[in-house]
Amino acid sequence: MKIKTIRVTPIAFRDPPLLNASGIHEPYALRSIIEVEGENGVVGLGESYGDAPVLEVLQAMVEPLVGLDSWDLNALRERVVQTVARLPRPEAGAELAPGSHPSKQVANAYSAFEVAFLDLTARTLGIPLVDLLGGRVRDKVPYSAYLFFKYAEHIDSPYPPDAWGEALNEEQIVAQARTMIETYGFESIKLKAGALDPDHEVACLNALKKAFPEAPLRIDPNANWSVETSIRLAGELGDILQYYEDPTPGLEGMAEVHRATGLPLATNMVVTDFDEFRRSLALGSVQIVLSDHHYWGGLRDTQVLARMCETFDLGISMHSNSHLGISLMAMTHVAASVRNLSYACDTHYPWQEADEEVIVGGKLPIVGGCVELTDKPGLGVELDHDQLAKLHAQFLSIDIRSRDDARQMRKYKPEWTNPKPRF
Amino acid sequence: MKIKTIRVTPIAFRDPPLLNASGIHEPYALRSIIEVEGENGVVGLGESYGDAPVLEVLQAMVEPLVGLDSWDLNALRERVVQTVARLPRPEAGAELAPGSHPSKQVANAYSAFEVAFLDLTARTLGIPLVDLLGGRVRDKVPYSAYLFFKYAEHIDSPYPPDAWGEALNEEQIVAQARTMIETYGFESIKLKAGALDPDHEVACLNALKKAFPEAPLRIDPNANWSVETSIRLAGELGDILQYYEDPTPGLEGMAEVHRATGLPLATNMVVTDFDEFRRSLALGSVQIVLSDHHYWGGLRDTQVLARMCETFDLGISMHSNSHLGISLMAMTHVAASVRNLSYACDTHYPWQEADEEVIVGGKLPIVGGCVELTDKPGLGVELDHDQLAKLHAQFLSIDIRSRDDARQMRKYKPEWTNPKPRF
Repeated sequence: MKIKTIRVTPIAFRDPPLLNASGIHEPYALRSIIEVEGENGVVGLGESYGDAPVLEVLQAMVEPLVGLDSWDLNALRERVVQTVARLPRPEAGAELAPGSHPSKQVANAYSAFEVAFLDLTARTLGIPLVDLLGGRVRDKVPYSAYLFFKYAEHIDSPYPPDAWGEALNEEQIVAQARTMIETYGFESIKLKAGALDPDHEVACLNALKKAFPEAPLRIDPNANWSVETSIRLAGELGDILQYYEDPTPGLEGMAEVHRATGLPLATNMVVTDFDEFRRSLALGSVQIVLSDHHYWGGLRDTQVLARMCETFDLGISMHSNSHLGISLMAMTHVAASVRNLSYACDTHYPWQEADEEVIVGGKLPIVGGCVELTDKPGLGVELDHDQLAKLHAQFLSIDIRSRDDARQMRKYKPEWTNPKPRF
Repeated sequence: MKIKTIRVTPIAFRDPPLLNASGIHEPYALRSIIEVEGENGVVGLGESYGDAPVLEVLQAMVEPLVGLDSWDLNALRERVVQTVARLPRPEAGAELAPGSHPSKQVANAYSAFEVAFLDLTARTLGIPLVDLLGGRVRDKVPYSAYLFFKYAEHIDSPYPPDAWGEALNEEQIVAQARTMIETYGFESIKLKAGALDPDHEVACLNALKKAFPEAPLRIDPNANWSVETSIRLAGELGDILQYYEDPTPGLEGMAEVHRATGLPLATNMVVTDFDEFRRSLALGSVQIVLSDHHYWGGLRDTQVLARMCETFDLGISMHSNSHLGISLMAMTHVAASVRNLSYACDTHYPWQEADEEVIVGGKLPIVGGCVELTDKPGLGVELDHDQLAKLHAQFLSIDIRSRDDARQMRKYKPEWTNPKPRF
């Protein structure tokens, strides 16, 4: 279907004060909502980063894509390459959102539109998007409970506190897990770490093990632990971890931790493109790749990555940043098509507020820890234009234009610095 | 589109007495023509091996695929796996047709139907098949002149001699190349070797270099040279070769030849699936993979292979066995979608006789060495049912049921044996 118009709308939605290795989430997360309208009036949807450097590329793509056929993904890629080549190279973006890094400009802009092109094609044909990916091998995609250390509310109280409350100690983290599991039925648990003292974080994981003895557990220090710390704590974590996610920085560091501990290491930080995949293989750095279609080059390249993981006997699952329902469904469609999906995927989705979804009907259900595919055309969700307008107005009303969790942390602790690894 | 019926028709067509490392081509080549008919009456086409063990699997798939949706390639794969699992494991097939090897049963049966499923889908939508592969990055796919040493006619004269005549010496091989280049416009030349004395074959390649100084040259001894012979002759070939194809057997042997000579080695013999790809990388065996959708798992898996070659900085081009126009168009559609196609592809197509094509209009044109894509739906070719009936009758009239070039050679030379490598 020939493309008639494209709209790229930056939005902002409330995000809780979640702690991580780079600082703390700002009160608003940024995303872009992409509408690709065909000459038949059908609209394909996409969702991507909303940070300024990404947004600039997405907006620069609007004109070059008009007139393209939604089947022609090779031409889409070529036009993204040409457009990025004529834009000035931006500063590096948020370190925990690999898709916003300048080296990922082509992959993430391509990804954003690829999803929308596929959605437009599938809606036009009246088939679920997953059919364009070879069909589903599962009807439900499992996600994990994604736990964070957090404060009770943002500094300066830009809006009333969220319902989750503070989570800094073992009891509070167990309570957070309980709420999340009772609400969504998750069967595995991921603890975002790298924020507090590592021994305390490990104690919290042990408390989770005690409270949920059957649940596979993961810890993700976001590369904020040294090789030594990672190896030392592996001694305490080894028996209870499903996998050890990005304990330490760099392919070499990860390889060293794996050699020393034998634990399966997962990553969304050191293997974020095909070249890093190749280098990781040579070093034996990681055993599980947490893919993310937003920066791996879309849904089809995520499938290529999955085949490469199968070939080289690596596990594959999925990473997530703060996102809304369009991204959740794109993740779900591609995950449903990947036969070797090895683990429940990550999603930040439970952390987003019910009144700030951009899709009709509000937030998508997660039941038994899973998001279910339907037989609806395309991604299976419709854009709520009133909600889009509201979240765009919210974007215009704030001054955050690029995610910076360290800057935000300095509002709480002016002397705070961000050495890596910290521990 | 839901599948209503499937027809698998074995055919036989005349094949010239071409010499190779395993003996000599039999007077007839076997193929299977696959028709996958949707509930809308549209028929998707496929072409695969016609050897008995392959044919058995293809025919066993007919019933399990009825009712499947042509989008559902994951279900197709699953049903092939189930069907192969309940069939007895066959004897090894012809060694130069990797797709007929028992280890490739799943990949080659899946491939055969994947092409037909994609063709059915694309025809139903009225779009070229390449659009389902992400669109074309080129309109024309280059092929190479594929030269063979050959006899003037088959033993026992089952039919009148072909027009090509004998090609055993330098003058005859240069004449064969000249005819092929004048007729089809090929710009690169491949000499099938491993049949005669290696020094004589190298002399023929040098004669080709002298006659066609601008044409990239390749030699393919089909693993019939020892490591020592391969290294010794590399000294004479090094300056004139575009690549050195399968000089010697095995991943280890190829790695040794590459280490000793530094020449880029191509293969369709030691990297024929994703597991061998992985092992070749570890050993540094080959630098160019000659893919073949008939045994690599279809058109989409060929695209995956191409991305893997890009990732690991390997070249990619295409292998061919004796085939007709449906396979040629399937090769052309996928090659048109692969941005990193590095070399002109191989094809046996010029060796097939004009009156034995199964597609309407007879043999497809090769102009300027290229096959051009059109905007016609699907593969862009239609089945000629009279020709199909004729070639099926020919299949029924002969007693060849599995290709065996060594058995055929013993008709000429009863004492002939087939040690590998011979030289």
